[in-house]
Amino acid sequence: MKWSQSHIFTLRDDPADADIPSQALMVRAGMIRKVSPGIYTYGTLALKAIRKFENIIREELGKISCNEILMPMVQPKELWEETHRWEEMGAGLLKFQNRNQHDYCLGATHEEVVTDYARRDVSSYRHLPSSLYQIQTKYRDEIRPRFGLMRGREFIMKDAYSFDVDQEAAQKSYENFYAAYQAIFDRLGLKYVVVRADTGNIGGDQSHEFQVLAENGEDSLMVSEESGYSANVEIAPIKENISKVDVELLDMEEFATPGLKTIKALAESLKVSEDQLVKTMFFAINEEGEELKPVAVLLRGHHEVNDVKLKNLLGLANPPRMLTDKEVQDVTGAFPGSCGPVGLKIPIYADQGLMHLANYTVGANKDDYHLKNVNHGRDFEITETADLRLAQDGDACPEGGVYKSFRGIEVGHVFYLGTKYSNSMNFKYLDKNGKTQLVEMGCYGIGVSRTVQAAIEQSHDKDGIIWPKSIAPFQVHICLLDPDDTELAEYTEKLYRSLQEKGLEVLVDDRRKERPGIKFKDADLLGMPCRITIGKRGFQNGEVEVTDRATKETQKLSPELVEKAVLDTLGEV
Amino acid sequence: MKWSQSHIFTLRDDPADADIPSQALMVRAGMIRKVSPGIYTYGTLALKAIRKFENIIREELGKISCNEILMPMVQPKELWEETHRWEEMGAGLLKFQNRNQHDYCLGATHEEVVTDYARRDVSSYRHLPSSLYQIQTKYRDEIRPRFGLMRGREFIMKDAYSFDVDQEAAQKSYENFYAAYQAIFDRLGLKYVVVRADTGNIGGDQSHEFQVLAENGEDSLMVSEESGYSANVEIAPIKENISKVDVELLDMEEFATPGLKTIKALAESLKVSEDQLVKTMFFAINEEGEELKPVAVLLRGHHEVNDVKLKNLLGLANPPRMLTDKEVQDVTGAFPGSCGPVGLKIPIYADQGLMHLANYTVGANKDDYHLKNVNHGRDFEITETADLRLAQDGDACPEGGVYKSFRGIEVGHVFYLGTKYSNSMNFKYLDKNGKTQLVEMGCYGIGVSRTVQAAIEQSHDKDGIIWPKSIAPFQVHICLLDPDDTELAEYTEKLYRSLQEKGLEVLVDDRRKERPGIKFKDADLLGMPCRITIGKRGFQNGEVEVTDRATKETQKLSPELVEKAVLDTLGEV
Repeated sequence: MKWSQSHIFTLRDDPADADIPSQALMVRAGMIRKVSPGIYTYGTLALKAIRKFENIIREELGKISCNEILMPMVQPKELWEETHRWEEMGAGLLKFQNRNQHDYCLGATHEEVVTDYARRDVSSYRHLPSSLYQIQTKYRDEIRPRFGLMRGREFIMKDAYSFDVDQEAAQKSYENFYAAYQAIFDRLGLKYVVVRADTGNIGGDQSHEFQVLAENGEDSLMVSEESGYSANVEIAPIKENISKVDVELLDMEEFATPGLKTIKALAESLKVSEDQLVKTMFFAINEEGEELKPVAVLLRGHHEVNDVKLKNLLGLANPPRMLTDKEVQDVTGAFPGSCGPVGLKIPIYADQGLMHLANYTVGANKDDYHLKNVNHGRDFEITETADLRLAQDGDACPEGGVYKSFRGIEVGHVFYLGTKYSNSMNFKYLDKNGKTQLVEMGCYGIGVSRTVQAAIEQSHDKDGIIWPKSIAPFQVHICLLDPDDTELAEYTEKLYRSLQEKGLEVLVDDRRKERPGIKFKDADLLGMPCRITIGKRGFQNGEVEVTDRATKETQKLSPELVEKAVLDTLGEV
Repeated sequence: MKWSQSHIFTLRDDPADADIPSQALMVRAGMIRKVSPGIYTYGTLALKAIRKFENIIREELGKISCNEILMPMVQPKELWEETHRWEEMGAGLLKFQNRNQHDYCLGATHEEVVTDYARRDVSSYRHLPSSLYQIQTKYRDEIRPRFGLMRGREFIMKDAYSFDVDQEAAQKSYENFYAAYQAIFDRLGLKYVVVRADTGNIGGDQSHEFQVLAENGEDSLMVSEESGYSANVEIAPIKENISKVDVELLDMEEFATPGLKTIKALAESLKVSEDQLVKTMFFAINEEGEELKPVAVLLRGHHEVNDVKLKNLLGLANPPRMLTDKEVQDVTGAFPGSCGPVGLKIPIYADQGLMHLANYTVGANKDDYHLKNVNHGRDFEITETADLRLAQDGDACPEGGVYKSFRGIEVGHVFYLGTKYSNSMNFKYLDKNGKTQLVEMGCYGIGVSRTVQAAIEQSHDKDGIIWPKSIAPFQVHICLLDPDDTELAEYTEKLYRSLQEKGLEVLVDDRRKERPGIKFKDADLLGMPCRITIGKRGFQNGEVEVTDRATKETQKLSPELVEKAVLDTLGEV
């Protein structure tokens, strides 16, 4: 492609509203333009990277006989009511009526539509196993879209679904997709980890996330290198290593703590470390609109509650919300900061981390007072003790070793769904014995547009993007410094055609009014793996420059050696 | 692809709700499944045909340096208000609010979004000419979706937009797109015509439609083979060949016509032909909600009014609506069937066809009475005479020759927009002299999913689809009749791989439980251009069959000659 015939417009400065570097770089490189919050137009360069990634996905899914289809973005309410997700999905599912007053939503995910699609035709064990995928635009009405394509409202996703006769076969499908995902992200060439994850409101029994490592990733990941176990912090299990100490239980005692509302302030005032204090938090476990059902959660002072673990312990559909200050006062008699477990009439769940603590300090359920020398079992009863806190760097992993934390961007997700959807949508088949059985399902997502931005987030420097070769919009960027020079233009045209004939995609910056400095800056910003610089002075000395964008190493070569150097740089020889 | 690993499900019978053959065939071939009225899931075969057509489009648009981008489907109200189309588009534009109560619509067309996209970066004559396109899912809230993908609500469209410095350059862009469209539809291999068309509410000055010929097409096309002129009947101009006859004007006379409410009944009663009668029709030319502004239109009895011509004569945005019976009575004093021009106080527009009529019969504006020997100029005044009727087979074309009518399916449309959008959205550039100028625009659409169905509508027989080779999901369909026979299976596998290595796409019907008759029926239904039949009995006699789907000609060949015969059939040698 010639720049002069393209629609590539770069910006010198970061946009004011960019949250992270990759977002700023995509805007500056003219790859995205915001139409509305979380809604973008993809420019030519972004679309080329997206299409390349889509093709990697297609090739790898083809190898596991997954068939591509295309489902609609506008979906009727009736299907979503079969699974009760019309209500369950909440405000993130954008709902509207068409001109005939029929209710529809914009597809945020396609379990309902694909189950309906498959159940019309799949009726026998002979039709199974089967798996389907689509690459399609989805819409989720994020309350606060941010990070560009990372948490947008409209985005491109690949979603796949597997259908199997039983759990064993479904497990095999799950493993096939897992392996295909590894192949896809290996080919992409980014550093990533696979972590165990919560199954969220998709439902189901087993789930792994594919996470591209990046400092600005939204997700916190816990990896034990020793055991090879890794998990999203949302579910990362903890092996507590606090041991039982035989101490004499002292008498519980109330004392005034005026103005000490935080663990930090209390620890400083009492001259103890935060981990010797116990904090009490309150959550509502009722559904919205139902009568308040409060519970208390106890944790050591330096720990944080993990609401996904709490959700799973209590068997809830979504993580429970914290009580408001007013609700806490209604339940305990005191405002947060002075509350504790002693005398509470509600269920009390304790993190396992405080099991062996004794003689600790908690709020007195009386404003500006605390109790010291409190002991569970003696002063109050714990309803259930469990692993309820967020793992931290250095925590022990139950599988062995200790956790090291990383930040990641979730780019892929595999779920084993079981019969959640086949059951609610009555998707059955006749087995070999003529008996009706529920179909076992799995679902498998890849955030296509998000992955392209994640690649930039992981791979850039102060000057711009450093594209992985697998999805670079162009592999080669030619800076033609003097496009009006006939000899240079002819050489460039010949090189351009020759490289294309070798299957490479080439962008030629043939702009006539831009100075060399601008062309170099733009080449660094756009970040194609290999840059060729063709200038009059060098060319007269028999020199053309070939630069590796990642290392910035430049070779000065005679024109006839350029092609080989390009192929070397790209690793294509 | 192996059938056993695919998700292809055929139906024996036409679906009850199919309006036209291509729709029924697509459902029976498992290519589409209805999710909601006008909303479909595309199966693997449909998607393959669609992708092939998309690639033809990409290649041809690449040749005219049109750059691909991707715009969002969810679009903010603000952009549509700039062009006043938020209101003008009416109920076909699906509008909704997101969770933050902001107004959005689903993209039915993208002039606003693309103009906004281009105006952010294009600021100088040096950035022009420029053209952009996308292939994207659109949504139009059709009041009565029908004909499958032909008039669906959600559909895939290619829309392109050109930006130029002046009218001359814009005309060149228009011609480039026109030529690219010819190349695209030539490659598609369907019979099509290009006709002049009305510009509708897209606006603009010049427009051509690309119409695939098919008996069930929604559009009526007028073609003069002698002059090469062709137009959609909506605008097809007519050269009237009624000549002036010198007759004595007789005295106007009222007479009773009880019960004679139609031209037909009146003609029979009076024993004259319908073309000697004049009918009077009434239209409202005010905007909805404004005070009624009625006009009368006069036509010869056997003609039909062309509301697009009337719209254009009167400079309206949309074709005017007919008055209700009650409104006609308010305006004329009589109900329709007894109305006429004599004594009317409203503008009277006459079709040129009655210019030379004399002593004709019209309604008397008095129920059950008509007037005979009426003459314009003497008994009433015509406000304006113009070409206001629908062309019919045999009408004279102003460019020469007579019209022959065809039915067509509109698959492509090129528009010269002028400055309609750049003006309302303030899209300007600095010209060579540093002066601010409005950008001249064009827009160019191709109905991608619609074209695939149009191909089937034009090309099928009683047994199924006959795919044009350009977009056939697979070029070759192998019916392997005895998949459990090792020798046959091995030969088939070898042939399958060998054909694929030659770049052909091959579907192998390797189903183990289906009888040969079913496999043949399915092969005819799916309609791939070339079928290979491999059966045990034939193979033992050294024979494999190669069948041309279009002609149904079958050759019995020894196995080693099959490949060549396939390539011959496909015209690939």
